[in-house]
Amino acid sequence: MTPAYESLLQQLKRLPGLGYRSAERIAMHLLVEQPEELSDLITSLEAAKSAVGRCETCGNIAESDQCAICSDERRDVTKVCVVEHVPDLIAIERSGAWKCGYHVLHGKLSPIHGVGPEKLNFKSLEQRLEAGNIAEFVLALSNDIEGQATCHYIQEELVGDRPIEVTRIGFGLPSGGGVTFADSVTLRSALESRRAYH
Amino acid sequence: MTPAYESLLQQLKRLPGLGYRSAERIAMHLLVEQPEELSDLITSLEAAKSAVGRCETCGNIAESDQCAICSDERRDVTKVCVVEHVPDLIAIERSGAWKCGYHVLHGKLSPIHGVGPEKLNFKSLEQRLEAGNIAEFVLALSNDIEGQATCHYIQEELVGDRPIEVTRIGFGLPSGGGVTFADSVTLRSALESRRAYH
Repeated sequence: MTPAYESLLQQLKRLPGLGYRSAERIAMHLLVEQPEELSDLITSLEAAKSAVGRCETCGNIAESDQCAICSDERRDVTKVCVVEHVPDLIAIERSGAWKCGYHVLHGKLSPIHGVGPEKLNFKSLEQRLEAGNIAEFVLALSNDIEGQATCHYIQEELVGDRPIEVTRIGFGLPSGGGVTFADSVTLRSALESRRAYH
Repeated sequence: MTPAYESLLQQLKRLPGLGYRSAERIAMHLLVEQPEELSDLITSLEAAKSAVGRCETCGNIAESDQCAICSDERRDVTKVCVVEHVPDLIAIERSGAWKCGYHVLHGKLSPIHGVGPEKLNFKSLEQRLEAGNIAEFVLALSNDIEGQATCHYIQEELVGDRPIEVTRIGFGLPSGGGVTFADSVTLRSALESRRAYH
């Protein structure tokens, strides 16, 4: 249509979850349907851009050097739950099942997508390890080959001989899930992680 | 999480087609996963904000007073296809089936949603009528009660006794669609708009 519109459309299409149709709908909404919302959106984006960044310790979203979790003195942040993305951290916090620290990798190892260790948030994890600030790892990474490779890398390359307890979260049937409706990979995980029944 | 993040999330959730999860995913993408994209997005939004607006004549998206269609001298813009939204116009242009002018209402009459004639782009349509610049209307509005009400309003309140040809686009089975899979409203439309078979 117009050059500025096309350029905005290209930017919107780069966002996760937006295809051509949804990007077009948002661009039209902001430019011709409800243009009064556009200024508010730009203001919010700029405020977030200047205020929000990554926690220097764990990679969580933060409005200062340390995120709210790493600076919470009631938490034992030497026990570290390793997750791929911030929404994973949010989901675990929401569950209330983990009251200690985190480390956000911002991805998982994936050689076929060109994601090597240098693209993940391993540098600050090494610093935490070298400073002796980590006593336990709980690896809460995906139940797939890439999650497996990332766990392996952490165990072999980072933990090595250090006396750190490393566990991986359990896999199996989700709450409320029946065997009939589970896919093969889930069933294999569930069978592999079977436990003695008391 | 953080105030600036929450504020951005609220803004993103107001956009059409974005729910909580998709807004969260985009906010995280822009703030912690790929923060280098955020500046580009803000630049595009601001460029579009200052460059793009509505065509004063037809309501289409435009980078000057007149859109590319209204200022195209090869088009007979006295023949006006009335649509609800700019993407409708884009879809009709893509079909190549209409080579004349348009008028974009930016919605349809919907009393239960509080959309009366004053909220639609009727003012410039009246101006076009009063200036004698309209010879024909093709109403390309939705096949529902609100689209019907909007067609009725245009015919009764705007066209009135003026010698203007008014038609409404055909409704029925879509291309490639079989009777078995059509819903009842479509089938009723298709039967009502049956034509002599030569």
